[in-house]
Amino acid sequence: MTTRNVTLEKTIRKLLDEKKYQTLKDILVTLEPADISAVFEEQDEERVPLLFRLLPKELAAESFAELEPEWQELLIRGFSDTELREVVNELYVDDAVDLVEEMPANVVKRILAQADPQMRKEINAVLQYPENSAGSIMTTEYVSLRPGMTVAEALNRIRTTGVDKETIYTCYVTSERNLLGTVSVKDLLLSDDDARPVSQIMDEHVISVNTLTDQETVAQMLSKYNFIALPVLDQDGRMVGIVTFDDAIDVLVEETTEDIEKMAGMLPSDKTYLRSSSWDLFLHRIPWLALLMVSATFTGMIITGFESALAAQVVLTAFIPMLMDTGGNSGSQASVTIIRALSLGELEFSDAPRVIWKEVKTAVLCGLALASLCFLKIMLVDRMMLGNADISTLTAFVVCFTMAVTVLIAKLVGCTLPMAAKRAGFDPAVMASPFITTIVDALSLLVYFGIASALLF
Amino acid sequence: MTTRNVTLEKTIRKLLDEKKYQTLKDILVTLEPADISAVFEEQDEERVPLLFRLLPKELAAESFAELEPEWQELLIRGFSDTELREVVNELYVDDAVDLVEEMPANVVKRILAQADPQMRKEINAVLQYPENSAGSIMTTEYVSLRPGMTVAEALNRIRTTGVDKETIYTCYVTSERNLLGTVSVKDLLLSDDDARPVSQIMDEHVISVNTLTDQETVAQMLSKYNFIALPVLDQDGRMVGIVTFDDAIDVLVEETTEDIEKMAGMLPSDKTYLRSSSWDLFLHRIPWLALLMVSATFTGMIITGFESALAAQVVLTAFIPMLMDTGGNSGSQASVTIIRALSLGELEFSDAPRVIWKEVKTAVLCGLALASLCFLKIMLVDRMMLGNADISTLTAFVVCFTMAVTVLIAKLVGCTLPMAAKRAGFDPAVMASPFITTIVDALSLLVYFGIASALLF
Repeated sequence: MTTRNVTLEKTIRKLLDEKKYQTLKDILVTLEPADISAVFEEQDEERVPLLFRLLPKELAAESFAELEPEWQELLIRGFSDTELREVVNELYVDDAVDLVEEMPANVVKRILAQADPQMRKEINAVLQYPENSAGSIMTTEYVSLRPGMTVAEALNRIRTTGVDKETIYTCYVTSERNLLGTVSVKDLLLSDDDARPVSQIMDEHVISVNTLTDQETVAQMLSKYNFIALPVLDQDGRMVGIVTFDDAIDVLVEETTEDIEKMAGMLPSDKTYLRSSSWDLFLHRIPWLALLMVSATFTGMIITGFESALAAQVVLTAFIPMLMDTGGNSGSQASVTIIRALSLGELEFSDAPRVIWKEVKTAVLCGLALASLCFLKIMLVDRMMLGNADISTLTAFVVCFTMAVTVLIAKLVGCTLPMAAKRAGFDPAVMASPFITTIVDALSLLVYFGIASALLF
Repeated sequence: MTTRNVTLEKTIRKLLDEKKYQTLKDILVTLEPADISAVFEEQDEERVPLLFRLLPKELAAESFAELEPEWQELLIRGFSDTELREVVNELYVDDAVDLVEEMPANVVKRILAQADPQMRKEINAVLQYPENSAGSIMTTEYVSLRPGMTVAEALNRIRTTGVDKETIYTCYVTSERNLLGTVSVKDLLLSDDDARPVSQIMDEHVISVNTLTDQETVAQMLSKYNFIALPVLDQDGRMVGIVTFDDAIDVLVEETTEDIEKMAGMLPSDKTYLRSSSWDLFLHRIPWLALLMVSATFTGMIITGFESALAAQVVLTAFIPMLMDTGGNSGSQASVTIIRALSLGELEFSDAPRVIWKEVKTAVLCGLALASLCFLKIMLVDRMMLGNADISTLTAFVVCFTMAVTVLIAKLVGCTLPMAAKRAGFDPAVMASPFITTIVDALSLLVYFGIASALLF
């Protein structure tokens, strides 16, 4: 997500060459952490530790959290224990957890050794939750208030403890870690009476998630309710952390990328494209390619079965690619639409009858339009312009009729398979174009040769 | 994005039947606006106005903003002028703009007639910006502070003016609408000296966008910097509004859906699936289907050109679907990966040489693996198990060699076309599977028949 600022990179390179460290420092402190990390990643490896040491403590930690894992590892390997301690303890817990999850074992050992006991405890607490759960992406740093505090006391508590909290804007009213309600800084600031207890202004109808809730659900809830943060409760209903909106945005982007990868017949990867080696790409792409190639055996068998008919009417072969591609395209339009709607929560399995009916009507419209256009195309382009006299009107009819039936089959397969997958508890995203194309290919060839056999031979 | 709560819907239906309005009111006020709108949309049309009138003013406006346009229109048609005035003036400006953009002309006239002069002015100001620009999604309600104010005065100003602001947490220090800096409520609360002027604690290095900046860029910036809001400046550099994180999430989701639709060969739609009629779906799907079908003429021509050769070696036909599908799948893996990376800003045109080299290496790996597997499959399955003696070892070799070359072509076409589209200023998303499949089909058939002609005839 880098909008690279080439001029800035050059300026920094030049200042480094000239050893103008004070000027460099003055420039760096004006930048956002995301920009600092982007600039660092464009510099020569051996200079990054020097640049990093120019940053003030808090900005250093925030920029460190934004770096790619390779760069984090590089920096840590160059850090003294004191430097490592400063950075680690300045990180937010969720960033520290991300770091620990990405680093090799010997680096993790050093990180945990330098973390404060409290930080170490919190990192370990978050680490125990399964991947992609709310627990694994939450932070344990939030502002908690007691129900008996007054508005003034609450604001005072925020003033004294707020520095290290990921957000101070939503505060959680707890009693023995049971979540009683939430109160926003807005509510506190806008309260007309500073002496009123927090329990009187808090919102008791708290929407929370469980540590084991899927991270995608958490992100969708934050997006649906426009919350800054959502509280996370453990299995005993006690509050253990919060997930903030910025993490939710990252989860949404990441999960969508995974869906898109699956839809294109790839195993999802958590590395960015440029960080993936060709070997990584190969491993993520070959399983589906191989599976789909082998399953094309059926299509081959169907053609072989009609070999003698085809030998007599070779002209039929010329239309196979068009029929197959149109079938594939029609099917993937339907499947991708349904998969996206399912993943946004716009559709559920119970909507299946409505969906199927809608797709049937759409398929009839598309099928009629394409069949008519196809007939025109065969008559005008293939017969008149290209002078292909082998194509009789009956052949054209067979092709166009197959076209219409193929579109119908494709749309039906394309809408039902993702919904069935959802129902069966699989990820609907794998039921996208490549998979559906293979099925539709076989079915459309059967229809094609079936109709051709009946009418032409 | 509705997680439907069936129990809640039933309870509300029952309470309505029994006319227990006070109980209904007590339940509704505990819900979030997004849930209230979801519940309303499941009730019978004629009952929704009644339900809506049970809500307190602010909650009513917030729930109204969450409703689908059809339901908003239905409610407005039932509103008295007084009711309409209350709802409209309670809306945030960006929600009011969305409403005006969705309603038919006669409803818009009523809405604007009932809006306060200030609200009407702000709606009109936002309406003048082009679709999908920062100006069109911003809100004009933000907290502005003067540089000379003290921390205490600033907090006091937030207390008195904050109620109607979409966010109070980032405040904008302006002088004659020139943006001098930002200060967060956190900075104000955590300041150790209430008498310090805001100009001393504000962050002068403000990241802002222009009214004409594309909304997707704005959303990606909010996501990159983890900001709650971004200030929007007009062409003269004066501050006119803010875009908040919740709108950025909506934009990201919407733009990704558009990308996915384009990748599957559809025109993007701004209606949800269930709200789209079959006719809508038809109109969005037929253009690409028709275009791709007609362009399959080339593939047909290639096959026709080799008709006599095919008639002699009909067995070659049986492998056409497998070769085409594998080519299509390989190409769409590459193109979809590149399109996603481009749209996330991970790749730029200048990365093209690296990308192409990476894809070539991946293609060689995939091609070798698939060709070997294909050879095994032909020998074991097609020849031994299915007893298809027509397939000579040389034929198998031709098929497998074509397979490897097809994969290479597909990956190259798949990665270069989206980057070229980006460079030429087009949306790379249209260069996805369907388009690339058509090109790869033609190329792979040429390779197939070329190799076959050289070796078999």
